[in-house]
Amino acid sequence: MDHSDWVRKELRKLSSSLGFIYTPMEEVEHRLARIKAGMEKEGMEALLVIQKMDFYYLSGTTQDGLLLVALEGKPLLMIKRELERAKLESPIKNAVGFKSIREVPLLIQSHIGRIPKSLGLELDVLPVRDYFKYQEFFPGTRLVDSSLILREARKRKSPFEIGCMRKAGEIGKKVYLEARKIVKKRMTEMEFGGLLEAVAKKYGHEGLLRVRSLNYQAYTWHVLSGLTGGIVSQSDSPMGGLGLSPAFPVGASLKVMRAHEPILVDFGTCYHGYQADETRMFSIGKMKQKFIDAYKACREIHNAVLEATRPGADCEVIFVNTLKLAEKLGYKESYLGPPGLQTRFVGHGIGLELNELPFIAQGQSYPLEEGMTFAVEPKIVFPGEGSAGIENTVVVTEKGCEILTPVSENIFQV
Amino acid sequence: MDHSDWVRKELRKLSSSLGFIYTPMEEVEHRLARIKAGMEKEGMEALLVIQKMDFYYLSGTTQDGLLLVALEGKPLLMIKRELERAKLESPIKNAVGFKSIREVPLLIQSHIGRIPKSLGLELDVLPVRDYFKYQEFFPGTRLVDSSLILREARKRKSPFEIGCMRKAGEIGKKVYLEARKIVKKRMTEMEFGGLLEAVAKKYGHEGLLRVRSLNYQAYTWHVLSGLTGGIVSQSDSPMGGLGLSPAFPVGASLKVMRAHEPILVDFGTCYHGYQADETRMFSIGKMKQKFIDAYKACREIHNAVLEATRPGADCEVIFVNTLKLAEKLGYKESYLGPPGLQTRFVGHGIGLELNELPFIAQGQSYPLEEGMTFAVEPKIVFPGEGSAGIENTVVVTEKGCEILTPVSENIFQV
Repeated sequence: MDHSDWVRKELRKLSSSLGFIYTPMEEVEHRLARIKAGMEKEGMEALLVIQKMDFYYLSGTTQDGLLLVALEGKPLLMIKRELERAKLESPIKNAVGFKSIREVPLLIQSHIGRIPKSLGLELDVLPVRDYFKYQEFFPGTRLVDSSLILREARKRKSPFEIGCMRKAGEIGKKVYLEARKIVKKRMTEMEFGGLLEAVAKKYGHEGLLRVRSLNYQAYTWHVLSGLTGGIVSQSDSPMGGLGLSPAFPVGASLKVMRAHEPILVDFGTCYHGYQADETRMFSIGKMKQKFIDAYKACREIHNAVLEATRPGADCEVIFVNTLKLAEKLGYKESYLGPPGLQTRFVGHGIGLELNELPFIAQGQSYPLEEGMTFAVEPKIVFPGEGSAGIENTVVVTEKGCEILTPVSENIFQV
Repeated sequence: MDHSDWVRKELRKLSSSLGFIYTPMEEVEHRLARIKAGMEKEGMEALLVIQKMDFYYLSGTTQDGLLLVALEGKPLLMIKRELERAKLESPIKNAVGFKSIREVPLLIQSHIGRIPKSLGLELDVLPVRDYFKYQEFFPGTRLVDSSLILREARKRKSPFEIGCMRKAGEIGKKVYLEARKIVKKRMTEMEFGGLLEAVAKKYGHEGLLRVRSLNYQAYTWHVLSGLTGGIVSQSDSPMGGLGLSPAFPVGASLKVMRAHEPILVDFGTCYHGYQADETRMFSIGKMKQKFIDAYKACREIHNAVLEATRPGADCEVIFVNTLKLAEKLGYKESYLGPPGLQTRFVGHGIGLELNELPFIAQGQSYPLEEGMTFAVEPKIVFPGEGSAGIENTVVVTEKGCEILTPVSENIFQV
């Protein structure tokens, strides 16, 4: 049977029966309008969307390809592989196949009748070698950075997007409920983390989390027990854990989880590309009092952030207030990491990627807006001993916020 | 307790007890010598190693930082986070901390006594915005592409590296042995894939696979049953599967696995950063004869590639010969994908990343060398029906090759 025929006739039926939802046209139209407003402000005639999550955001597909957005006229979807699937997944009507980037200028010329004088590219992630190619293929065109326009447009989520994140949160809830039945004495951190992820995948978690970065890969098996919770690593987080080797020195290790240790589980789930991130504490037998107290403090800080969250609230102010509260609670030296290694954020924007706008952080003085989504994660770290923390993903609503990760915040004691 | 003190006193003991091995000094010295030979040939005075796997290859650590390699003098490790762990993980003696890229020129100046006239950067992956920063901070320096030197140096593996890949292969073997006990009728592809990965992690698989690419993330739950095995997707592989949504349209889906269907499991494992990749076939009850026959043909093609593998053999010739053999066996139209979507490779270099040199592929006319490692994966695809395939990871030896993924090649029938 011909692959294209089969895709056209059968794929939508099969994938819909297995729970696929497709980005609606109105959704893409709203997003494109937001992007075009940004382009107009910057005097950008067109932009080429290359990075996978920007591409998915504006086209509804993650097939291998590029999207042209011109200030005037319809967008053009250019697909390398696989064109028939892209046509089925994307509500964008104009879709053509291509084999090499060399063909792109001609495709654009045919579509909008000219070569744009200025062309936006995501210069925050685009490799230099690709940029040189675009310079060669668009000799008279000014190549400019489009990444801020795209990141700004993506920071406020639509009801459709929030719905996907809520679904991700529901998967997370199922994981934490089953986790109580899985965790056992003598189990290693990695064994526990692996089984948690298997549960999440069974319920529709897509398995990979995404970060906009050259050198950082996100993972879901962040299970830290006792002293591994006190270890800082490469990532900009209060603690990173031990990991499995110098090649992967973060997250769960092959250390056995022991009774009374604080066991911190930081777990992300993904539904249709949209992520939810949450942290809960486990213990086998009663957790050491020091960590019960630290966890209580984290919850207090977490609640203060939620209390302050509403449209117009300043992100940096919220962050600085958590520093003051942590000090008042007696955790100045251990809040967000050990002395000298403390991170300067308590919340990170989340959606298609784990490092979206806004950041509830030092130096990030801008107002929260309705529809923004972020994970708030106060953590307290004691080197050589362990850590405590909580994390929820929230959406900013008209008057406050709503938690998208509705799991009990009690310590899971087994 | 102070984090640095704790790391210096306790971390090596803890991590060694949990199976960490550290890259030996001699190993790094050999690698640096190879890189310097490449730099000399290209007239490159120094290079700055940024990309995570290049950095791990030359420093033995993946903490957040940069490595300076100068033609004359010792290398300099510059670490953002976390310095004490990097010092412990890397055999490189000169290690300093820094907070911003702005400090890098001064650190280099202090270390080698001057600012280099030419500086290599990995332009195949370095984001443009970072490149502009380096242009600003090194105004008199010619910035050149170092990626080919690094990729060329990495293509021949040392006995230490092959040992790590062999360990990854052993983890894979355990996974496939336990898989027979896991696979069940009425289980979804994703449930099976998730449990396989949980087993792998229990035995030390690091969970993430790595690819040198802006837009492609590798994953391990490539479980395709019946018709999902006939679906092509975004990736340059014979078939991609259905996946879970338009945001992740590859790999296992929520489709239930049924009796007699061909179930193709393509699974990668990772030990200390080094990967092994393999594919085996499963069935619940006897597999449909069409796929038993196709699998037999894949094994024949696979064996022919192994037969031809030795130092000096040309990669393109090996590939073209598989096209001829596939045609002779009656699979011209289905070998490596459906008509119009057939891929042009049957093997890919593997090590720290899944897309290393060499490629056993069209247009890749160069000789195999002793110590090269690649995955050979002939596959046969029937849209609307399914696929069959086999894959092993091999190392080129003095006179032939050795398989690093020693799992039975029979169909796993349960």
